[in-house]
Amino acid sequence: MNNLILLPPDESDLRLQKLRQTMQAAGADALLVSDNANIYYLTGRVFTGYIYIPLSGTVQYFVRRPVGLDHATAQYIRKPEDIPALLISTVPSNIALELDSACYSLVQRLSRLFPDASLVNGSAILRQCRAVKTRYEIEQISVSGVKQQRVYKLIPHLYRPGMTDIELQIEIERASRLEGCLGQFRISGSSMELYMGNIIAGPNADTPTPYDFAMGGAGQDPSLPVGSNGTAIEPGMSVMVDVNGNYTGYMTDMTRTYALGTLHPNALKAHQCSIDICAAIQKIAVPGTKASDMFELAEKMARDNGLYDYFMGHRQKAGFVGHGLGIEINELPVIAPRSRDTLQEGNVFALEPKFVIPGTGAVGIENTYVVRADAPALCLTDAPVDIVYL
Amino acid sequence: MNNLILLPPDESDLRLQKLRQTMQAAGADALLVSDNANIYYLTGRVFTGYIYIPLSGTVQYFVRRPVGLDHATAQYIRKPEDIPALLISTVPSNIALELDSACYSLVQRLSRLFPDASLVNGSAILRQCRAVKTRYEIEQISVSGVKQQRVYKLIPHLYRPGMTDIELQIEIERASRLEGCLGQFRISGSSMELYMGNIIAGPNADTPTPYDFAMGGAGQDPSLPVGSNGTAIEPGMSVMVDVNGNYTGYMTDMTRTYALGTLHPNALKAHQCSIDICAAIQKIAVPGTKASDMFELAEKMARDNGLYDYFMGHRQKAGFVGHGLGIEINELPVIAPRSRDTLQEGNVFALEPKFVIPGTGAVGIENTYVVRADAPALCLTDAPVDIVYL
Repeated sequence: MNNLILLPPDESDLRLQKLRQTMQAAGADALLVSDNANIYYLTGRVFTGYIYIPLSGTVQYFVRRPVGLDHATAQYIRKPEDIPALLISTVPSNIALELDSACYSLVQRLSRLFPDASLVNGSAILRQCRAVKTRYEIEQISVSGVKQQRVYKLIPHLYRPGMTDIELQIEIERASRLEGCLGQFRISGSSMELYMGNIIAGPNADTPTPYDFAMGGAGQDPSLPVGSNGTAIEPGMSVMVDVNGNYTGYMTDMTRTYALGTLHPNALKAHQCSIDICAAIQKIAVPGTKASDMFELAEKMARDNGLYDYFMGHRQKAGFVGHGLGIEINELPVIAPRSRDTLQEGNVFALEPKFVIPGTGAVGIENTYVVRADAPALCLTDAPVDIVYL
Repeated sequence: MNNLILLPPDESDLRLQKLRQTMQAAGADALLVSDNANIYYLTGRVFTGYIYIPLSGTVQYFVRRPVGLDHATAQYIRKPEDIPALLISTVPSNIALELDSACYSLVQRLSRLFPDASLVNGSAILRQCRAVKTRYEIEQISVSGVKQQRVYKLIPHLYRPGMTDIELQIEIERASRLEGCLGQFRISGSSMELYMGNIIAGPNADTPTPYDFAMGGAGQDPSLPVGSNGTAIEPGMSVMVDVNGNYTGYMTDMTRTYALGTLHPNALKAHQCSIDICAAIQKIAVPGTKASDMFELAEKMARDNGLYDYFMGHRQKAGFVGHGLGIEINELPVIAPRSRDTLQEGNVFALEPKFVIPGTGAVGIENTYVVRADAPALCLTDAPVDIVYL
């Protein structure tokens, strides 16, 4: 397959059309894309190079690597400075660049290609456009959801008495990979790092991490301080499993809670509260609902149940209860107190009302939902939600 | 452990002293660090926040997450705009920021904290400083090397007849994780993405990728187009294994070649050439040797053996034969034709003269070496180099 564009033509056209509408609303004349996630969004493949999208006229694809793409679409260049002489549309009066993902040096270099153009934040444009998924994208996400559910069903069978959290995680990683998990997912923001996901057992859940994830954990080494830390799984502990659902380039996010022996009543109550929060938010997650109202509802339900101290962490709390996702794990909308996002048809978001109960560990669930026009949000990770006893 | 700085005090002082010498040589008055890899370098841990290093005077640590660090060292802030009021050293006339890793928006925001200061490229300073490893760092890398060798010894026992490249890879990943591999390694550059490493079997080795890695492969999905693609391992194929050696936050890089049945004579010749190139370069890898001369020697040896067409790729060639490594997989020195780097005592580099033989696959080896003052470079991944038959 030497076609540069691997998306079906209708899909490619649809994304481009959506992008141009967003560009127009933002007042952008042209957009130059170089971020892998955005290149994948626009073409269905990753290449090293640049896509130049004028508000109208011909889109141009400038490629450094891989070699061998069809020259009808790919224009091979050695360096970005080769681009201006190759541009066929009129010179833009401003240029949108990916200011939130491209490093400063790269933006400086690219902006010099358009010496008379002012700079627009292309990251914001692409983030807004990508937040509303097409039917095709929702199908890709759904496929990941089905595969992720299959892996979660195996988890009780992977557990062996005496295992540590890491040992269980390694078996879950293997099962995920055998199911087709791609083993890496994309995340935006240079201070965000994560591997195959998190498994946290017992009190390790209450160890604060530097990362802006919902849950903590000390990790195995101070160089990657998040998640499992070698805790031996013992009676009375909860084991929260939040692992990688990237099977198609579009991912789902899903968490379930497992336990050994009997959990503290507070943990059981909190787990039920998480289930109830998901159900309540699923109902109101329709176009027009404010993301901040969704957060407030979740927080209120936690508070009304006397569980506020444990909601979204105990020693350290996450500032959100959900997040958009698709190509990257952290897209729009952000379901947080000060979010300005309002739900739109086609948004896909993960909801993760979790609780950390000191002495027991983390409890709660996480599901991925798609926002529909005339019905409550549809759950794409629709597996049993109760605590599974190992 | 609530100490912010997890490095031994002597080590922390030594790194700071080296950094300040590099800052002085670059004419930087002060440096503000926010990149995870650099924060880890300076403290031995990762936190979300900033380190302010004036050329002389008190280093300040501004922390957003995690909570709970010792307030004797950590100054908690909510946002970078809180920093100026807390600074205790004299106002710098210029400020070094991480222009090659921080996104444009962040650099803009941070530079506004120092409205009268000019910008200096802090990435270049830190890259240069980190290229020369301390004794402590070399020990950390050596520990990874020992563990990585143990995993490679297991590989022939993980193979089962009829396996695909991905199935073998999944078992190697599991064995690595059980040995303590942290499962993620750091890589600089936003267009660089890699998971647990690459396994490429047979003709898949000749599929060009978008990434600037030494070897290719189609991958499992166009969203992550590199490495194993489901090729069934068959007689006459080589299987190149280049997997993650991050066991301590400091990694080694190592490749070995496996094969099923008898390989084409060209492949055997090329594998021996790779071994010979490593031996020849190890001898000349002493302080003062130019990295470009090392590349030229490798290329000359490939050419003299009639193997140039296959050297560092066939349809697509990598532009380097080796690279520094440590906290990140792609540090200085770069062993490439136009590299301006000259070896220094304490450099740690991976050397990977590889060949892609059409029809057979990739052959060759990769080792990690440390440059010493009075002896040839020391190999930290000193396992048998011959092709291992599965």
